[in-house]
Amino acid sequence: MLASLLPALRELALPLRLRLWDGKELDLGPSPRVTLAINDPNLIPQLAHPSLDLLGSAYVEGRIDLHGPLAEVIRIGDELTQALGRHTSSAPPREEHDKATDAKAISYHYDLSNAFYSLWLDQDMVYSCAYFESGNESLDQAQQAKLRHLCRKLRLKRGDRLLDVGCGWGGLARFAAREYGAEVFGITLSREQLTLARQRVADEGLEDRVRLELMDYRDLPADEGFDKVVSVGMFEHVGHANLPLYCKQLFGAVRPGGLVMNHGITARHVDGRPVGHGAGEFIDRYVFPHGELPHLVNIGACISETGLEIVDVESLRLHYAKTLELWSQRLEARLDEARALVPERALRIWRLYLAGCAYGFRRNWINLHQILASKPLADGSHELPWTRADLYPPA
Amino acid sequence: MLASLLPALRELALPLRLRLWDGKELDLGPSPRVTLAINDPNLIPQLAHPSLDLLGSAYVEGRIDLHGPLAEVIRIGDELTQALGRHTSSAPPREEHDKATDAKAISYHYDLSNAFYSLWLDQDMVYSCAYFESGNESLDQAQQAKLRHLCRKLRLKRGDRLLDVGCGWGGLARFAAREYGAEVFGITLSREQLTLARQRVADEGLEDRVRLELMDYRDLPADEGFDKVVSVGMFEHVGHANLPLYCKQLFGAVRPGGLVMNHGITARHVDGRPVGHGAGEFIDRYVFPHGELPHLVNIGACISETGLEIVDVESLRLHYAKTLELWSQRLEARLDEARALVPERALRIWRLYLAGCAYGFRRNWINLHQILASKPLADGSHELPWTRADLYPPA
Repeated sequence: MLASLLPALRELALPLRLRLWDGKELDLGPSPRVTLAINDPNLIPQLAHPSLDLLGSAYVEGRIDLHGPLAEVIRIGDELTQALGRHTSSAPPREEHDKATDAKAISYHYDLSNAFYSLWLDQDMVYSCAYFESGNESLDQAQQAKLRHLCRKLRLKRGDRLLDVGCGWGGLARFAAREYGAEVFGITLSREQLTLARQRVADEGLEDRVRLELMDYRDLPADEGFDKVVSVGMFEHVGHANLPLYCKQLFGAVRPGGLVMNHGITARHVDGRPVGHGAGEFIDRYVFPHGELPHLVNIGACISETGLEIVDVESLRLHYAKTLELWSQRLEARLDEARALVPERALRIWRLYLAGCAYGFRRNWINLHQILASKPLADGSHELPWTRADLYPPA
Repeated sequence: MLASLLPALRELALPLRLRLWDGKELDLGPSPRVTLAINDPNLIPQLAHPSLDLLGSAYVEGRIDLHGPLAEVIRIGDELTQALGRHTSSAPPREEHDKATDAKAISYHYDLSNAFYSLWLDQDMVYSCAYFESGNESLDQAQQAKLRHLCRKLRLKRGDRLLDVGCGWGGLARFAAREYGAEVFGITLSREQLTLARQRVADEGLEDRVRLELMDYRDLPADEGFDKVVSVGMFEHVGHANLPLYCKQLFGAVRPGGLVMNHGITARHVDGRPVGHGAGEFIDRYVFPHGELPHLVNIGACISETGLEIVDVESLRLHYAKTLELWSQRLEARLDEARALVPERALRIWRLYLAGCAYGFRRNWINLHQILASKPLADGSHELPWTRADLYPPA
């Protein structure tokens, strides 16, 4: 079986070494940089038509091992898939998103281990796309710049009541309270995040301005009281079917004249299907169960249909590629520490996911869009300045 | 008939005077600022349930006359319509947009009279939303600022080949050539525009860098040769059915790594229908035959489906309200000169359309979105800077 596969593999001249279950090694091209160790002979027939999901799953389940720089592993995996794969990305599954399912899905990812996340996130543990003003900043600097960019887009000012939907470890909530004097109410479905986030709020003495709760977005009180609403890396978890409800909740939470910022990952579609050679299925199976990436147009339509006006959209695709590359490099540099914190299986998943998503953003399979929307007053006016120049003050 | 209508009208307490065909006058509220002269008694039954289309059409056809400040006329007309109208906006007509029909529709509007347009447009005759950096600029300043904003968003540089689809009177083409050293190819379907635009190009000695042609966008050579493509106030004329073809043409015209700017009017929908109490039907009948305003999401979907990546969207809704208010004020100040240039019927149409659209933008019935899209290189990279700070250089 392997013999019949080899000519096609060799033709690709990839810098890839195969190591078989019996210890035999085969170089598929010159100067191999990556070794793919096949532990399970039964995998061979499937390798004739690989997908990123197949390769990734085989690694997670221990049927293969991978050695070499992870970015190279991903690139070679993609070339293999592109050349030999018969995989066509299917539409993302439309699953039921009730509160219990969503709580479980969020817990699966975000309750993994605060100590593990702190190994490779920035010091504030901001787990979303950073913002590189020059491209030469450290991760810490770029995450602080992202928090500032969001607050600037929201035209946040002292005393503003800010709702932070999916507040994570509280980085944005604390920044908004500390740097802008906002009164923040943040919600998350992750107990681990909430515990650490509350502790950090207390450490900084911000309890009077930051309140954080374990709460589903569907349970938000519809009091229209917030001046601003921010949602970072959240709509990806909501599910297509619930996007209208999600947007309706945000619309309901903000006062007329207020602003809503949606920052999240969007999918690129070709012929109505997401691209990525099966990467999405892997992510769905192992990384973000029940995650569903909407196209910019889908989330934009839901936002518009509530009556919010889309005033500013910015793609930060290559910012997220760079963020994920830094996360991946930082995790790769601390694998031994990571092994002490999470099971080997989880470590394999997170390693592939970070390097793979970096690759996906680079290749334009997925994007990151910041969508700022305004809730107009009855006469159609809003409180935004004439231009966006205030987002870019002279240094 | 009028007697049965009067109680409902009087209840609204609008500052409106009715003048009947027999000279009789009726004040519907205190201190009337607007007089509606009803010349045709047969109109009375229809006035029981007015729409902006009914009122506007009656004015154009001379069945009514309107006296008073035009902005007040529009506001009172809308209040009347909101209170008494039974009109529900219908979905815009989906008409055939072949080349002959489109050429005729464009000619109807843009070939009206260069001299007439020059009465109320800025000195460069830029017939699209201006850009007010402070809100205090003159129309001339704001139109030049708009041209600069577009060129900045396109990251235009010396020697760039720029395609200007729907080039109007050539204001942007000349600006890009003169201020940025771009090589511009512009197309329009209006002979009057082309004649004056070419003359202005010659007057400035820009013939070696600006070529303008009478051409349908469907006849563009698909040579992928342009570094940048700009389309200002054009997609509104394309028709929903042809939006995918229009976007495909733009995608085909730009080289990989290049940028495409779509600047145009978008419709707000509620329950899938445009808003505006019948204003859209009036515009369609008298102002822009075959015009069809897409929702931001519709044009965004068509752009995305070609493979272009949406990188920056900006709403300039209140900029267009202000632009139209200035246009309307300038026309109102020169009505006598205007009467010497166009038929009374056309003048009535243009007067209502300018004041009415200003009102529509103010009230958030319609919007103006600048959509910048990138055609990524095969590896997913693009040539944009990390941030948009370059659009806002320190003064």
